[in-house]
Amino acid sequence: MFLNELADMNDAEHRITKALPKMMEAATCGELQDALENHLEETENQIDQLERGFELIEEKPRTKKCPAMVGILDEGDEIVAENKESPSINAAIIAACQKVEHYEIATYGTLCTWAKLLGSEPAAEILQEILDQEKEADQNLTDLSLAKNEEALEEAPV
Amino acid sequence: MFLNELADMNDAEHRITKALPKMMEAATCGELQDALENHLEETENQIDQLERGFELIEEKPRTKKCPAMVGILDEGDEIVAENKESPSINAAIIAACQKVEHYEIATYGTLCTWAKLLGSEPAAEILQEILDQEKEADQNLTDLSLAKNEEALEEAPV
Repeated sequence: MFLNELADMNDAEHRITKALPKMMEAATCGELQDALENHLEETENQIDQLERGFELIEEKPRTKKCPAMVGILDEGDEIVAENKESPSINAAIIAACQKVEHYEIATYGTLCTWAKLLGSEPAAEILQEILDQEKEADQNLTDLSLAKNEEALEEAPV
Repeated sequence: MFLNELADMNDAEHRITKALPKMMEAATCGELQDALENHLEETENQIDQLERGFELIEEKPRTKKCPAMVGILDEGDEIVAENKESPSINAAIIAACQKVEHYEIATYGTLCTWAKLLGSEPAAEILQEILDQEKEADQNLTDLSLAKNEEALEEAPV
């Protein structure tokens, strides 16, 4: 169950690295673009850490299709496409990214608990580190959303 | 964008009311079954509250297919099916439910912020109330998971 969940997140992270550049391109605000670029680098690094996690439990890195992330990113594509020419675009991107972050928070939370229970403290440390990064990314998006939502509202046609 | 997101959650909540009885049936622990039953009642009540939310902004209640919840629940079905005869079954159900909760936390968080910005304080209050319930449900599952994960480990074949 632990291995399957690790493989699920490995697939999810790979999908996120493909989705983030599209979000960056659609964003019309430098601050949001920078936040997404930073998170892309962080995600690439997390994939390396996940591979290290597999090695620590003496398994080959693997992926397992993550239907949840497929659905979350499809929804992201949709909301971004619907708001492409709208002042709401940045608020739409933030909303989509926070759904991604929360899926990761739930799954890394579970993985971290399971790694500890299975007695792999080094794997638990890696997973805790990634979990903390995801929580921070989510908080950054919340902070940014306050400004971006107000902008969307000010610029929206009456 | 606000209306679409509200309709997305309305669809998600309806899907959750169909998924929870299956989870309850698969669970082998009374405490978890009770927690799921309570959350099913809470979810049915949240659907009523969402309908009230639509009325408050003078719109008819509607649903919009939520691909993210489809994916999250598919993954839940899979992990439950794979662990049906295993001592890990309760830990598997908790992991699946926490993914559901986190999707809801992300979306209600966004909806609540948007309702406030759009000046609908009564809708924001309803959404905040639901958000608090989802956060509490997630916390309850975390508390329960500590006991269930240890049980799974103790009973697992070496």
